[in-house]
Amino acid sequence: MKEFDFIHWICGQSSFDPAAVPVGPGDDMAVVTLGDERLLVTVDQVLDGVHVSLAQHGPQAAGRKAMLRNLSDVAAMAARPVAAVASVALPKGMGEADARGIYRGLRALGDEFGCPLVGGDVSTWTQPLAISVTVLARPAGATGGVRPVLRSGARAGNVICVTGELGGAWLTGRHLRARPRVQEAIVLGLRYRLRAMIDISDGLAADLGRLCEASGCGAELDAEAIPVAADAAAGRHVEPLQAALHDGEDYELLFTMPAAQARQLCNDSNAPLTVTRIGRCIKEPGLWLLDAAGQRQPLEPRGWEHAT
Amino acid sequence: MKEFDFIHWICGQSSFDPAAVPVGPGDDMAVVTLGDERLLVTVDQVLDGVHVSLAQHGPQAAGRKAMLRNLSDVAAMAARPVAAVASVALPKGMGEADARGIYRGLRALGDEFGCPLVGGDVSTWTQPLAISVTVLARPAGATGGVRPVLRSGARAGNVICVTGELGGAWLTGRHLRARPRVQEAIVLGLRYRLRAMIDISDGLAADLGRLCEASGCGAELDAEAIPVAADAAAGRHVEPLQAALHDGEDYELLFTMPAAQARQLCNDSNAPLTVTRIGRCIKEPGLWLLDAAGQRQPLEPRGWEHAT
Repeated sequence: MKEFDFIHWICGQSSFDPAAVPVGPGDDMAVVTLGDERLLVTVDQVLDGVHVSLAQHGPQAAGRKAMLRNLSDVAAMAARPVAAVASVALPKGMGEADARGIYRGLRALGDEFGCPLVGGDVSTWTQPLAISVTVLARPAGATGGVRPVLRSGARAGNVICVTGELGGAWLTGRHLRARPRVQEAIVLGLRYRLRAMIDISDGLAADLGRLCEASGCGAELDAEAIPVAADAAAGRHVEPLQAALHDGEDYELLFTMPAAQARQLCNDSNAPLTVTRIGRCIKEPGLWLLDAAGQRQPLEPRGWEHAT
Repeated sequence: MKEFDFIHWICGQSSFDPAAVPVGPGDDMAVVTLGDERLLVTVDQVLDGVHVSLAQHGPQAAGRKAMLRNLSDVAAMAARPVAAVASVALPKGMGEADARGIYRGLRALGDEFGCPLVGGDVSTWTQPLAISVTVLARPAGATGGVRPVLRSGARAGNVICVTGELGGAWLTGRHLRARPRVQEAIVLGLRYRLRAMIDISDGLAADLGRLCEASGCGAELDAEAIPVAADAAAGRHVEPLQAALHDGEDYELLFTMPAAQARQLCNDSNAPLTVTRIGRCIKEPGLWLLDAAGQRQPLEPRGWEHAT
């Protein structure tokens, strides 16, 4: 059973009244109508041995990462966090200090982003730690005027941009320190016409593949333009570019916009963060990588393979 | 590390702006302000070997129970479900049919109660199944006029009522078939002045203990009045009354109301379900059981001890 196949199947199972559920499964967050308001909701889990190593990283890092994964989804919609709830399955025998550490990790990052932890469920079992966090959010802007940015809005001709630098996040431990791009996404959403957005959790190529699939287009990346982290290889015998394309866990934003807007953004000295133009959306489906010589090769939408 | 101690500690850690978070951790659902609306949110997990046995009960029952536990919390607030999200940690090697069964179990009960599954997160790991569901709800009534019923509203002199029959739910498999009392709770909330409410998941005595602690009162139960299920003992050598008091997993409603209201409710031939008066709230803290002879003995707020 492949996770992605299962998720695809799930997305095909449900149809919603678009007035009640404007955005269902398959985007970074679902959007639900609540009276006169629109509510965004996402859920992400952190499992010991998959998304974090409790023994290596410690309980506070596990809690923080569970909140990070969710807040990064909020950023990917250019929305504003409202509150979070968490369920935690504690391994039997875990000490009080460790359990509190998980809570503190969740709280510290949530509080920093205006996302208080308002409820939860705690159970104990004889298995490893499992944390599941749900974050609620609202459209950003003074009057909620920033529309949630979906994965499906990219069009041929759009420029593809990415924030920050990519590659090696897991091995360097950067996935534990990453800051969700919540504020930056809101500023971008207020100033520019973002067409489609996703956060990079599984890897640039994998997540770009999802964005393109949702939008019904393809993409061409300029290999030389991709912002590769200085330590992307992280001591491995891999090309740093390959690490930037496929490692994942970066929690940076990947988005598309009209070319003129992208030029303006990249020349904006008040931009809230480093943004790099890395390619363009094309009509032809699939992902492609252009090297410096203009040679085009297919790019596999392959991402980080978790431990299991 | 005891779960309840940890939850107590968590509840003591946070203070909220009451305008933004009218109800924080420690009730059946948290209440959050969202613009002009009030949103209720709860999270509950179902872990293989703790809340369900995947081998014995099957994947669909596991999914259903995860939704049931959450919808029963919605009922305990007399609220109306809006939508759900779920995270699922699948054991590596689980087949496609089983994974779909989990989803179908979640969906079927959610759809029945107007609670569509709008998003989720799926991971695979080498450990047993873990499901976490978050349900969002709104205040019930045509104009949201039914205020959420908290655990903390009980006062000395209130009559204590319970729905349905109690005991033996786990051993008879009733916990897998239980229907969350969502509609019934709304009808009760519309017609009567419910003072405090909780659903019975850990056991009548344990959950009554929580309601009394939140309300700052004690309670006296009439042993003979407690509605004991005919099969409460479920083949065990236990007193059926003890099973009704401590087994849990009933997903019935336990609530308090002024005495005159309780009389009216129990005489109401249009009542949406069977309601039994089982005792009264008292000033003196602690739980007490009165037998037919009027002998009073302390009642331990002890509930179902899960497998781990």
